[in-house]
Amino acid sequence: MNETQDDNEVLNLLRELYETTIPFNRFVGMRFEELTTERCVMGVDMRTELVGNPMKGILHGGVIATVLDAVGGAVASVGLLKQLPPMSMSDLSQRFARMGTIDLRVDFLRPGKGAHFIASGDVLRLGKSIAVTKMELHNEQGTLIAHATAAYMLG
Amino acid sequence: MNETQDDNEVLNLLRELYETTIPFNRFVGMRFEELTTERCVMGVDMRTELVGNPMKGILHGGVIATVLDAVGGAVASVGLLKQLPPMSMSDLSQRFARMGTIDLRVDFLRPGKGAHFIASGDVLRLGKSIAVTKMELHNEQGTLIAHATAAYMLG
Amino acid sequence: MNETQDDNEVLNLLRELYETTIPFNRFVGMRFEELTTERCVMGVDMRTELVGNPMKGILHGGVIATVLDAVGGAVASVGLLKQLPPMSMSDLSQRFARMGTIDLRVDFLRPGKGAHFIASGDVLRLGKSIAVTKMELHNEQGTLIAHATAAYMLG
Amino acid sequence: MNETQDDNEVLNLLRELYETTIPFNRFVGMRFEELTTERCVMGVDMRTELVGNPMKGILHGGVIATVLDAVGGAVASVGLLKQLPPMSMSDLSQRFARMGTIDLRVDFLRPGKGAHFIASGDVLRLGKSIAVTKMELHNEQGTLIAHATAAYMLG
Repeated sequence: MNETQDDNEVLNLLRELYETTIPFNRFVGMRFEELTTERCVMGVDMRTELVGNPMKGILHGGVIATVLDAVGGAVASVGLLKQLPPMSMSDLSQRFARMGTIDLRVDFLRPGKGAHFIASGDVLRLGKSIAVTKMELHNEQGTLIAHATAAYMLG
Repeated sequence: MNETQDDNEVLNLLRELYETTIPFNRFVGMRFEELTTERCVMGVDMRTELVGNPMKGILHGGVIATVLDAVGGAVASVGLLKQLPPMSMSDLSQRFARMGTIDLRVDFLRPGKGAHFIASGDVLRLGKSIAVTKMELHNEQGTLIAHATAAYMLG
Repeated sequence: MNETQDDNEVLNLLRELYETTIPFNRFVGMRFEELTTERCVMGVDMRTELVGNPMKGILHGGVIATVLDAVGGAVASVGLLKQLPPMSMSDLSQRFARMGTIDLRVDFLRPGKGAHFIASGDVLRLGKSIAVTKMELHNEQGTLIAHATAAYMLG
Repeated sequence: MNETQDDNEVLNLLRELYETTIPFNRFVGMRFEELTTERCVMGVDMRTELVGNPMKGILHGGVIATVLDAVGGAVASVGLLKQLPPMSMSDLSQRFARMGTIDLRVDFLRPGKGAHFIASGDVLRLGKSIAVTKMELHNEQGTLIAHATAAYMLG
């Protein structure tokens, strides 16, 4: 599906927000591998600083929670975007900054073994003030590592 | 309450595991402020890399989840320790390494404003194979920032 | 603490709503044992229809979830009440009817053995549009059976 | 896929357990609409006793939690069944009775309007001692009413 010029501008704003503007995200090193009005996918490469269990060399649960919350927030942001009337980029930016996670549940299903991890999310419900999303983390071999659901305040 | 020599040795093992051995914990910079067989408290100092919303200068939700999961795991470890028969430090170390978070729910209650954050945890249930804990994060002024519950596999 | 006449009128409205107006609550048989602007406690008597495991004769997990959600909703309602400007009982009644549970997590800690169960709740956060609460269920001997947290839309 | 005679015998045991033996389930009136080694679906008809909000005539959240927990437990039981060595029906029955829900999160997405509700579940992870499942509740028009995840002790 084609994105309009405007959509692309906003999606780039979201990309910058999640990848660069948020310091902790930059440390974790997450990047959008897909970011359209239809689908959000984030990837993160394994590296020593992200290890949770040095004996097993697996991804830290805190990193898993961080990435799943980020992709859920991105999915909720894109959903919000579709509901909003046209507004300036500066207003949009402030609107996104007012969003927040209400609560997050992560089910850690399998050890985070792998060299590259992919997080994707889906909207379960998009209301006027709240969005609920579900998210999944897979490794590069397609193994499901973690599942999550979260509720977001839309600001 | 006095800890026996043996307890202290094991608590030091736990301290090293959580503060130093786990690379991602070291990056986050969490430290035990209290670690006895009766109580676990971890602290983390705010710094630029841990920010989640640069406009507001607040602690990242992923850091909050990471610290709450860590203190919950520590509380569960100490509980497990009380149930275990005496064993060598190397066996204990392997036993702790087999523990894992089954699932974690974090309620983000208030923006993570502050210079220093304190996470504490309590055991809700300690079974043979599973522990359930609740955790809280406060800032240095005593504001409750987040609440969490988690289930841990005892290995 | 003394309740004003007005508070009492509203608390009676809440009592009727939770105990009588909601058909499924009436079947479960929950009753407020304490209902003030400071504290909500609900009780439920064990009986055959509420059993979840006939071999063990324990309370059904669905009943536990139902009672914990109810007491959390009551606690959130009382919190909302304190924030609202004075309004007619009919407006208040409609306001309460617009409230809803966003999500609920129940930790089932111990088998629901007992003859009488007591559910209590506390507000973790009360915002303009959302309340977050934690709840506990004990049996008549003071054993902690279940713990829960929930987010409520304030309508 | 064809079920062997033995599988059918066990599935009938499960059906009887969930539909008839558990008193609270019988009150709620849930019935398996599909129960094979591949898929579990439960249905429940709306009736006055199950209403949560008489103004709106919607299904009570406690009923939603009850049905989702039941279908998650059934899915976990069927998964467990595939792992178990052959055993007598009486041993199996005791094994199922030892299972229990560790924790349950329900996301209430839309008002429970409808005349008939359908709950289905999927295994996210099946371990030796724990299963994690996700569940969904739809009404007869296919509207997604609620989503849940749960962890079960396999006994």
